[in-house]
Amino acid sequence: MAAIAGTPSPPYYAVIFTNLQASDTESYTATADRMVVLAQTQPGFLGFESARSGLGISVSYWRDTECIRLWKLNSEHLVAQSRGREAWYSCYKTRICKVERDYAFDADKGG
Amino acid sequence: MAAIAGTPSPPYYAVIFTNLQASDTESYTATADRMVVLAQTQPGFLGFESARSGLGISVSYWRDTECIRLWKLNSEHLVAQSRGREAWYSCYKTRICKVERDYAFDADKGG
Repeated sequence: MAAIAGTPSPPYYAVIFTNLQASDTESYTATADRMVVLAQTQPGFLGFESARSGLGISVSYWRDTECIRLWKLNSEHLVAQSRGREAWYSCYKTRICKVERDYAFDADKGG
Repeated sequence: MAAIAGTPSPPYYAVIFTNLQASDTESYTATADRMVVLAQTQPGFLGFESARSGLGISVSYWRDTECIRLWKLNSEHLVAQSRGREAWYSCYKTRICKVERDYAFDADKGG
């Protein structure tokens, strides 16, 4: 999903998930794709961005911390998180952030 | 630089820079690498993470918003930002965030 997330005006929240994969990546991609679809059905979901080149960085955007808490506790997401620790990730770091300010540039619109 | 940044305990700040490249990427990589080196010499720099797969996501971590402001105004960085808008990026979004909470997993350390 190579697109910049169209988030509303701040404040809102970002969850930065930075990770390194382990050698076992069986069914990783299917599950990761499914999690993006599932997240979109959660209350307060605002957007998602992801990239990987060795290091993987995924950022999901949310209305508030309660929405982030509910997403973390989603039952299907809990299974994926567990599998992530057992198999897919050698290490990761999750950072919960309040987006205080943002600005954008678009060459087609003259900046 | 495929490593998870070793940041201190929150609160601290993150600048999420999400971007799509334009077709002209001449000298982009050299400048991007130079900016990472230069950022490390700035007051309050805490770490840097970057990945690209179509979409590029770079996250820099800082002590506070004043350090972010000073980095944005760094003269060599200003030249790079200008060149970025003129040539390298078709669009980007920058989000300034306060990291309120973080947690990590490391398979080698048992989670």
